[in-house]
Amino acid sequence: MKGTAKAHTNIALIKYWGKRNEELILPTNSSLSVTLDGLHTETTVQFHEDLQEDVFVLDNKEVTGVAYDRVTNYLNLFRNYAKKQGLFAEVTSTNKVPTAAGFASSASGFAALAGATSKALDLQLSDEDLSRFTRQGSGSACRSIYGGFVEWQMGERDDGQDSFAVQVAPQDHWDIRVAAVVLTAEEKDVSSRVGMRRTVETSVFYDGWLQSLPKDMETIKEGIRDKDFEKVGKVAEANCLKMHATTFGATPPFTYWQDTTMSLMQTVQNLRKKDIPAYFTIDAGPNVKVIYLPEHEGEVLRTLEAARGVEKIIVSKVGAGISYK
Amino acid sequence: MKGTAKAHTNIALIKYWGKRNEELILPTNSSLSVTLDGLHTETTVQFHEDLQEDVFVLDNKEVTGVAYDRVTNYLNLFRNYAKKQGLFAEVTSTNKVPTAAGFASSASGFAALAGATSKALDLQLSDEDLSRFTRQGSGSACRSIYGGFVEWQMGERDDGQDSFAVQVAPQDHWDIRVAAVVLTAEEKDVSSRVGMRRTVETSVFYDGWLQSLPKDMETIKEGIRDKDFEKVGKVAEANCLKMHATTFGATPPFTYWQDTTMSLMQTVQNLRKKDIPAYFTIDAGPNVKVIYLPEHEGEVLRTLEAARGVEKIIVSKVGAGISYK
Repeated sequence: MKGTAKAHTNIALIKYWGKRNEELILPTNSSLSVTLDGLHTETTVQFHEDLQEDVFVLDNKEVTGVAYDRVTNYLNLFRNYAKKQGLFAEVTSTNKVPTAAGFASSASGFAALAGATSKALDLQLSDEDLSRFTRQGSGSACRSIYGGFVEWQMGERDDGQDSFAVQVAPQDHWDIRVAAVVLTAEEKDVSSRVGMRRTVETSVFYDGWLQSLPKDMETIKEGIRDKDFEKVGKVAEANCLKMHATTFGATPPFTYWQDTTMSLMQTVQNLRKKDIPAYFTIDAGPNVKVIYLPEHEGEVLRTLEAARGVEKIIVSKVGAGISYK
Repeated sequence: MKGTAKAHTNIALIKYWGKRNEELILPTNSSLSVTLDGLHTETTVQFHEDLQEDVFVLDNKEVTGVAYDRVTNYLNLFRNYAKKQGLFAEVTSTNKVPTAAGFASSASGFAALAGATSKALDLQLSDEDLSRFTRQGSGSACRSIYGGFVEWQMGERDDGQDSFAVQVAPQDHWDIRVAAVVLTAEEKDVSSRVGMRRTVETSVFYDGWLQSLPKDMETIKEGIRDKDFEKVGKVAEANCLKMHATTFGATPPFTYWQDTTMSLMQTVQNLRKKDIPAYFTIDAGPNVKVIYLPEHEGEVLRTLEAARGVEKIIVSKVGAGISYK
């Protein structure tokens, strides 16, 4: 009753920004991401008949408190499904996603946990089933089951059975790069979970955001299919700006941006004025992720390194889906 | 046939952001402003039987080109109204609104021009009539006819007869201050006129913006009536953030903000964390206007002066309406 899985984090180009069901983690819109090479979590789950409770060890440290509760609650989903209530597990994780990078380590974390648990219990899940399970641990994690370009289809059903991720294009379809620019960060005033909820509940722009998404999704899929980098970059950047604009229409208004975030955006737009196709996307935090093509890596990285407030840059290729040992 | 008028500029706390009729300058929403002391234009208009065309002298320099055409086209409105076609004028203006301050000098400019022209032609216009004329020169100028706190009522009629400004509270009602913080500016990519039009035509947030305005207007009028500074400041700041958020939802997206704009916003919000009630508003440019109460002037100005990228600060009290010599 042991399983080990490795999953990569992902970066959304069409953002997930709002839940229609907080319990089941059902989104208000479909989203699309690139799985990222190098940034992964590897997790082993071993069920023992003689354990009295779950044990969670992350990077060689035993975890307690809220993070422990989240893992053990998540394991209950599998125990209920497999009718193995009362059977506890030792969960051992190694996280290669630097928390400070502004990547949700929960994406690779819950994908690896779901994969390892399903292996340990020999559940023989399809990728879609596994993605559906993963979604209930952390929404955007459901996209990390696959490599390459991945769509989380929002679904319509109240029970969430049709809300899971599918692969749009495999890892080897297209070699694009992502530079995660980590900025010297002030403390975050509003967490992504709280900000998402406040936006859904109060933003005067939320309807406009939702209405604009089907078109964005259609455009980006065409761009990925045709490897049209300008098309993909433009719609990803515009989508990110719309997502962040919704926070200015919330009550009270808020933002995840710092002044250095804004100057980085300008830096990327200035690269384009020099005919270097580079586009940014930003999640619920100040850091900026820049997408570009391999032939421009030198100039893009030199420019980003010279920008104000940059602490470090983590470069990534398109990554693979979940794998097992 | 000579008239001289002096009018002050104004700063909107509920923004004018979109036209429903570009020709008559009819807005898509009502707006509200404070008239600003000190920042004014004084204009003399003198009609001469022997002039073959209009002459426009601004700050002792004869003006030609687009600015001249705008003035002479505007005078046609009055000539048509007074049935004085073929009668030309010498227009002499002195502008005490530093262009670089990011205040629309067109606001005080067209208000003074309308006032001086109507005096020169002895039109005996009511303030409302004058405001209606002024609106057709420059939309926000119609609010500069009055001192104190002024609402431009959008009106509903296609001919614009019900679209003019009214005074909400007189100059001596409430002593609040406005500091215009002029930032070292990059060149403006998108003019306010073009940005406004692009937003109306393409922003996915424009409906949300419009729908949120009646509530903002109601709240700010209560706040002004009750001299509730927090209420006024909060709604003004939120309204400004919403206006600017609409530009991120346009196609293509754009912004008037620089990184220094964003850090100034943060500076103002940090003042509030130290219990100094100060709020910002921003027009279609990078500069930030800060509103505060007289008792906090020292601390507010010291803080703003120390902020990054500040070129100069222009402080103003609540100003008077149009006056004649």
